[in-house]
Amino acid sequence: MKEKHFEKESFGLKEFSLDDSFIGNYEKLIRQVVIPYQEKALRDEIEDAEKSHAIDNFRAAAAMIETGKCEEEFYGMVFQDSDVAKWLEAAAYSLLKAPDPELETRCDEMIDLIGRAQHKDGYLNTYFTVKSPEKRWTNLEEAHELYCAGHMIEAAVAYAECTGKEKLLEIMCRMSDHIYQRFVIDQVEGYPGHPEVELALMRLYRYTDNHKYKELAEHFVNCRGVDRDFYVKESEKYPWTVWGNDCEDREYTQCHVPVREQKKAVGHAVRAVYLYSGMADVAKESKDQELMDACRVLWDNITQQRMYVTGAIGSAYEGEAFTTDYHLPNDTAYAETCASIGLIFFARRMLDLEKNRKYSDIMERALYNCVLAGMQMDGRKFFYVNPLEVIPGISGEVKTHKHALPQRPKWFACACCPPNVARLLTSIGKYAWSQEGKTVYSHLFLGGTLQINEQVRGKIKVVTNYPYDDKVQYQFIPDELAMEMQLAIRIPSWSKGTQILLNGEKFELSPIDGYVYINRAFTKDDVITLALDLSVRKIFPSEKLNADSGKVTFSRGPLIYCAEGVDNDGDVLALSVKEEGNVSEVIVNELGNVLGIDVEGYKTSVDDELYTYDRPIQKETTIRMIPYYTWGNRGLNQMRVWIPEKK
Amino acid sequence: MKEKHFEKESFGLKEFSLDDSFIGNYEKLIRQVVIPYQEKALRDEIEDAEKSHAIDNFRAAAAMIETGKCEEEFYGMVFQDSDVAKWLEAAAYSLLKAPDPELETRCDEMIDLIGRAQHKDGYLNTYFTVKSPEKRWTNLEEAHELYCAGHMIEAAVAYAECTGKEKLLEIMCRMSDHIYQRFVIDQVEGYPGHPEVELALMRLYRYTDNHKYKELAEHFVNCRGVDRDFYVKESEKYPWTVWGNDCEDREYTQCHVPVREQKKAVGHAVRAVYLYSGMADVAKESKDQELMDACRVLWDNITQQRMYVTGAIGSAYEGEAFTTDYHLPNDTAYAETCASIGLIFFARRMLDLEKNRKYSDIMERALYNCVLAGMQMDGRKFFYVNPLEVIPGISGEVKTHKHALPQRPKWFACACCPPNVARLLTSIGKYAWSQEGKTVYSHLFLGGTLQINEQVRGKIKVVTNYPYDDKVQYQFIPDELAMEMQLAIRIPSWSKGTQILLNGEKFELSPIDGYVYINRAFTKDDVITLALDLSVRKIFPSEKLNADSGKVTFSRGPLIYCAEGVDNDGDVLALSVKEEGNVSEVIVNELGNVLGIDVEGYKTSVDDELYTYDRPIQKETTIRMIPYYTWGNRGLNQMRVWIPEKK
Repeated sequence: MKEKHFEKESFGLKEFSLDDSFIGNYEKLIRQVVIPYQEKALRDEIEDAEKSHAIDNFRAAAAMIETGKCEEEFYGMVFQDSDVAKWLEAAAYSLLKAPDPELETRCDEMIDLIGRAQHKDGYLNTYFTVKSPEKRWTNLEEAHELYCAGHMIEAAVAYAECTGKEKLLEIMCRMSDHIYQRFVIDQVEGYPGHPEVELALMRLYRYTDNHKYKELAEHFVNCRGVDRDFYVKESEKYPWTVWGNDCEDREYTQCHVPVREQKKAVGHAVRAVYLYSGMADVAKESKDQELMDACRVLWDNITQQRMYVTGAIGSAYEGEAFTTDYHLPNDTAYAETCASIGLIFFARRMLDLEKNRKYSDIMERALYNCVLAGMQMDGRKFFYVNPLEVIPGISGEVKTHKHALPQRPKWFACACCPPNVARLLTSIGKYAWSQEGKTVYSHLFLGGTLQINEQVRGKIKVVTNYPYDDKVQYQFIPDELAMEMQLAIRIPSWSKGTQILLNGEKFELSPIDGYVYINRAFTKDDVITLALDLSVRKIFPSEKLNADSGKVTFSRGPLIYCAEGVDNDGDVLALSVKEEGNVSEVIVNELGNVLGIDVEGYKTSVDDELYTYDRPIQKETTIRMIPYYTWGNRGLNQMRVWIPEKK
Repeated sequence: MKEKHFEKESFGLKEFSLDDSFIGNYEKLIRQVVIPYQEKALRDEIEDAEKSHAIDNFRAAAAMIETGKCEEEFYGMVFQDSDVAKWLEAAAYSLLKAPDPELETRCDEMIDLIGRAQHKDGYLNTYFTVKSPEKRWTNLEEAHELYCAGHMIEAAVAYAECTGKEKLLEIMCRMSDHIYQRFVIDQVEGYPGHPEVELALMRLYRYTDNHKYKELAEHFVNCRGVDRDFYVKESEKYPWTVWGNDCEDREYTQCHVPVREQKKAVGHAVRAVYLYSGMADVAKESKDQELMDACRVLWDNITQQRMYVTGAIGSAYEGEAFTTDYHLPNDTAYAETCASIGLIFFARRMLDLEKNRKYSDIMERALYNCVLAGMQMDGRKFFYVNPLEVIPGISGEVKTHKHALPQRPKWFACACCPPNVARLLTSIGKYAWSQEGKTVYSHLFLGGTLQINEQVRGKIKVVTNYPYDDKVQYQFIPDELAMEMQLAIRIPSWSKGTQILLNGEKFELSPIDGYVYINRAFTKDDVITLALDLSVRKIFPSEKLNADSGKVTFSRGPLIYCAEGVDNDGDVLALSVKEEGNVSEVIVNELGNVLGIDVEGYKTSVDDELYTYDRPIQKETTIRMIPYYTWGNRGLNQMRVWIPEKK
């Protein structure tokens, strides 16, 4: 196996050891709590949680293949296999950082089972093997075969990268060969209803250097939307359905136009960003300018017209979808955790195309707000939907708000988000760093040690308590005398008057697209200090956002803040922020000592009238706000990100 | 026929001749434009509008009965018959005010046709007669048989009242006898999925004095929700469906608990208020205190927790329904015109139970805002849904906003609202007045002449240009020397420092529940002047209304105001109202010289960023606002009732 592509794509995964007290603690939580918990869930060993049956599905499929008999029913979503894949991927990353022979043995056994569930022709999918063997490949729109394949390919690459064991990789190469045979060689029409296999095949290509996987990824990217009626024809030819999707809803499946002609992010948000990630991968490897341009246009549309301030995307439950420019309702937001994770995937790949903080700033915003909020602070419960306003009695209750739960449930029948959080956080080094030649990019500020082995030899040790600490220190430990290299550091757009000190001396900043490049033969005495401005800042929404008219919110560094009822006498809706009010920082003990802020404001006194002619009495009050990622950890509660502002 | 009950119930219908320039003009518009237009629609004579086929359905049903052959298909909604009924009712009222022999002949012919569509056993419903004769009475939940019967009963009573012709009344007495036989004598279980027949039967009872119609109405009120599983059992016994309603959704059909135990207004808003109207009718005639109390509790819940400031009800498209307390989203409101009309029915009946301006104030608010907004000012187009915020590009477009059209369409396949507006406005005298003994109540302020014939003999002439004019003058024209009576005038809660002048002298106000009682032997020289305070007033929402946080709106008398893009450089979302700003009145020529208001405010300058750290620049501006009922008459436009307020 050639290492070249692998190194480029996953730089930071093996090279970076995270040891800070923020994302580092999350990584530990994932390893110690989430991965074991999710393994139990996949094995149906958690009481009172919805059944997964995901492992049993593989067992049933293996039995079908070995005995030809259906001994057990398939259970769960059509994409249940992907839960196992995402978990395996997270477990692989975890094994890299913390060897655990028992876990590794169980993973190996799981991989053996997966191998037994594979058909001789390479096909692998328990839903079809167990439930409908004759229906293989007849419902690309809904049945997620290529989606599941994609996730298992990602798991296979990750497991090979992290453990060196390539059995799952071989299984998934066979499956990929099977797919290649069908769609490229045999030229059977079709493209995946839920994109994912494209980016996965690009990972497989980079790891194996086998060009046919790149070719297959390109094929799926290129043919999408060219025959925009493909799903309509498919459903006419094979009139069976998984959940009755409307095959005429071409935006939902991103086949309304060929990808290069897409100008607006539409349809199912997760599908969209997975697709765009695959497009960016293909664009990069193929040097396809037109495809790169399409990616840029879609990125700008998302982040300039269709993204919540928390980095969440997807304005509507209906279709779990983008809606239209400037439609970002707070209480009915879909804002799926997986969609923000997908946005991070997309951002990271755009950074491979071009270094610009407009990608990394958003990557950070999505991570530190929407994605972290997706998980209970104890790692045991998860949100799919991350609304920006929650009102018990309405949220999760009213028909239009059923999806917007006010508290995290244990485990979902559709368990896509929790293992997605796990695999993201256990591989976060990939997102924090990239290397191009002798230039090393620092996209995210995570404490830990980066070992560089190619072109430059040595370690960079990052010391920081970011995002609560405003200093990020880069220390250098060359393998030899010096590390002749260029360190490129992101200057976040939210930080005013950022300074960089080189050995205590102010370094003249001339950032290019938000990155400062420091060229030097770094020796072991060199220290670079990034001094950020973490002052609390008020954020104003575009006046085009009807849901936020007259409101403001607050941020501190990358963190967006919100007010929760438990800190504010149970009544957040009655609060307004004083226009010129003071803001002070405060430690919130009940939330593991996170930094809250106290904001001067007003509270409208309760009045039983629905509408009054008399101005409601406003009393001065202090509004306690907490980082958005910590909300929902203290019981049933009102919560609001955007708060009206009064003089 | 005894006249007693009839007089009581419909006092004002025959007695009052409306001739003012506001509601009077609407009445004329209905007579001259809407009724002819709707007749054409029912006859499918309007190009480019959705087909009705409602008259043809009766033709097809008559043919079925006369020849036994189905010569033409049924077309349209299951409740298509009710469109004809509501139109006939409006036509009847119109004939009373403006004799029109040709129209009357066409009505008589229509009634002949309806008679021919009636079965020998009295059954009348074209859907079942033409489409599914064997399915009669097997889907009370969805199939609207009792609903259509109710509307045709109302039409029959109205036609008899207004023309003296009782053929339709006889038809509907036979149908009512048929229903009585089935549900009371034969004791077949069941109650109407869509309430309406209850209030209709009470009208029929009052007109005919036949107690069995009262008994039948009571029966339907009393048995509702007692077996809360009735619809579930029905759908198990007769597993066919009209549109796949969920029979387990008991709130939708108001059968979740017996009516006397209902504390919250839930489910389909039109069904709810039609039911409550029937309940109030039954409570009044049966002197049923428990039922009256239930009506009061439901009234208070609607008006104190679940009503838009425009008098609209129904917060969600999903189920066209009430949702929960304080959930009143502006842009996704359902706020159906028919629901506000039903609220007016309910209010009027509550006034029969007890005189309190809390009913008449809301009756007026719903009429002058939501209901009038339901119709284009030219009478040619109609809204079902009356949102309080409209954003072209989102409203009517986004999946969650498909129902909230930014412009009135021509005619609906489901044409419930337009004829409902027509029948309300042509019978508005009934709502303006009531008489109890020698007391005459003035609930609404309409210019015209009231002829009183019972207990008191003479005319009251009301001179006013209300709601734009702050004076309402009551002149007296006794048949003999004097009218010894009590005039009870509503003092609207929105009017501060209201005065009443009796022959120029200030009359000491001691209102009881919002009504001032003036006892006198009125002679022809007596003049009472009600001097209202029509100052523009700012309205503040309860802080519990999350959709309205930090926002205000304006009213002038009963009229609620809104801002439309066409008056405000196309951009209403960028506006905020100055807290202590001035307000001035202005004539808006393009809207037929209605009174607009100019409000001091700010406009945020457009910024292309979705979120900024820099306070957007605010420039002083003048916000033009117009009465809500006039919105949407000048093309595609932003519109907003609630506007943020800034110092």
